[in-house]
Amino acid sequence: MNWVLGIDIGGTNLVVGAVAIDGSRVVGNHSRPTDASRGPDAIVDDLVAMASHARDQLAREVPGAALEGVGIGAPGPLDTKTGIIALTPNLGWVNMPLRARLGERLDLPAALDNDANCAVLGEAWVGAAREARYVLGVTIGTGIGGGIVLDRRLHHGASDCAGEIGHITIDMDGRRCGCGNYGCLEAYASGPAIAMRAREQIRSGAESRLADLVGGDLEAVTAQTVYEAASIGDDLARDVVRATAQYLGTGIANLLNVFNPDLVVVMGGVTQAGDGLFEPLRRVVAQRAFKPAVDACRIVPGTLSGLAGVYGAARMFLDQRDAA
Amino acid sequence: MNWVLGIDIGGTNLVVGAVAIDGSRVVGNHSRPTDASRGPDAIVDDLVAMASHARDQLAREVPGAALEGVGIGAPGPLDTKTGIIALTPNLGWVNMPLRARLGERLDLPAALDNDANCAVLGEAWVGAAREARYVLGVTIGTGIGGGIVLDRRLHHGASDCAGEIGHITIDMDGRRCGCGNYGCLEAYASGPAIAMRAREQIRSGAESRLADLVGGDLEAVTAQTVYEAASIGDDLARDVVRATAQYLGTGIANLLNVFNPDLVVVMGGVTQAGDGLFEPLRRVVAQRAFKPAVDACRIVPGTLSGLAGVYGAARMFLDQRDAA
Repeated sequence: MNWVLGIDIGGTNLVVGAVAIDGSRVVGNHSRPTDASRGPDAIVDDLVAMASHARDQLAREVPGAALEGVGIGAPGPLDTKTGIIALTPNLGWVNMPLRARLGERLDLPAALDNDANCAVLGEAWVGAAREARYVLGVTIGTGIGGGIVLDRRLHHGASDCAGEIGHITIDMDGRRCGCGNYGCLEAYASGPAIAMRAREQIRSGAESRLADLVGGDLEAVTAQTVYEAASIGDDLARDVVRATAQYLGTGIANLLNVFNPDLVVVMGGVTQAGDGLFEPLRRVVAQRAFKPAVDACRIVPGTLSGLAGVYGAARMFLDQRDAA
Repeated sequence: MNWVLGIDIGGTNLVVGAVAIDGSRVVGNHSRPTDASRGPDAIVDDLVAMASHARDQLAREVPGAALEGVGIGAPGPLDTKTGIIALTPNLGWVNMPLRARLGERLDLPAALDNDANCAVLGEAWVGAAREARYVLGVTIGTGIGGGIVLDRRLHHGASDCAGEIGHITIDMDGRRCGCGNYGCLEAYASGPAIAMRAREQIRSGAESRLADLVGGDLEAVTAQTVYEAASIGDDLARDVVRATAQYLGTGIANLLNVFNPDLVVVMGGVTQAGDGLFEPLRRVVAQRAFKPAVDACRIVPGTLSGLAGVYGAARMFLDQRDAA
């Protein structure tokens, strides 16, 4: 059995592991916080060190294991053909030839793709979506990303932009989004947007135990504290989660009517909200989308938690190599 | 050269023609108004008569021409696998086994698909989208339909619902749509919605030459009279067309961010509005969608006018047969 290194570059954590090419297991996986404060090259150094660690552990656990290459999932916009990341303000990268840089330092063939694409591909390969033919994945964290897998292959579109599900409009005259547009799903249902909606309601006088949870410092409210408060029965937090389901459900219903997937997999911190999110989400989608599209589609949380991106990056390497 | 009959069943017109299997020409094409008043079977009789006429003309113009089959584009929802149309209220059809009915009466192998899907496939085969790899088609008439062609093949999705572009939400708390949802694109930008917005403005006191064009009978205002008034410089009509571009542009921008097509082809009566529609439409899409997606995509009117559905139905027959 051969192996592929999977690298998942998130805004919060870097995750690296060695993935068996049949997807049966991952070895040497570990993560560390993404620390962009030491300059753009330090993250590359961190990734190289993490990759060496994963390689060492693979050699110990599976003597004689051969590595075929490395797949890298990174924030975009990026070009899968040149392997260059155009611009990631959070990491300080501008026109970073990451595929070439990591490929050379690891002495392995390398492939680069969008982090959300990799996460969806991971779930489609060995996770929640492994039985599905038309998969729509939504990743909810600092932003909202997504990916489309058709017949087990990522749909990249004409310029590697496909799957930007956070940037569908749900209210054409609505909130300004970071992308410059108005009323994007991301402006309502990303982690920071969830926290902001909770803060807005508390500031306008609503009662909530959230204020206690953050010691009175409303700026410390995050999506996580909202889910926590909802789980202990806080009404305001539950309202915020239900409204999140309304926004997400509107966006996902759009995609059911246009794509008609057989599975929607939702990934990221928001899945911590559990049934408090998924039940109203499924209800909203059923109200808004066409019945044959609703009947054909399951909406589920991802099952690979922190490793979807690593699995998917490895699989993406194999797919890009096979297509070349 | 062999031939395929193409049948396009529209809410306003039935169109039938014989299409060369290389897409180079259509012979014997003609249309007649869709007349559902004589009951559900009368339309089938009409189609059989029209098909006979096309066959006769083909035999005269191309002696010895052989027909391989018949492709039928019809309003849905329908099932491409069983060839049954579930429900088309306008035509009085409920669970109509149209593929079997027409196949038997014409004594030809038959295939059935959605009318908008066929129109997009026609444009992708021999029309405005023939050079494109990822095509999004939008048909605007009584309703708003659409279709997705990826690598020259229709994307049907899990239950033949894909491409229902009229039913993406652009304002989640907006106008009620005929489908039961709120704020669908169709509720703003279909032909009847365009006419309704013009009437609403005139009733609320706006000046317009539209009232003269319809002899003072506002109920007689249609999308066509709005385009006509806009073309002679009527300010209200121009505003209505510009607002239409805003709605359509919002919906199409969503799809650029999710699908990243290299071509969007807009079909139907709305294309009569010409640059008065397409220029603001392109501007709105460029404002709302991601730049790499905008840069990669042209937005154009269809070029096959009344024959896109006939060409596409013929091609769809060939594709379904090849996939079987």
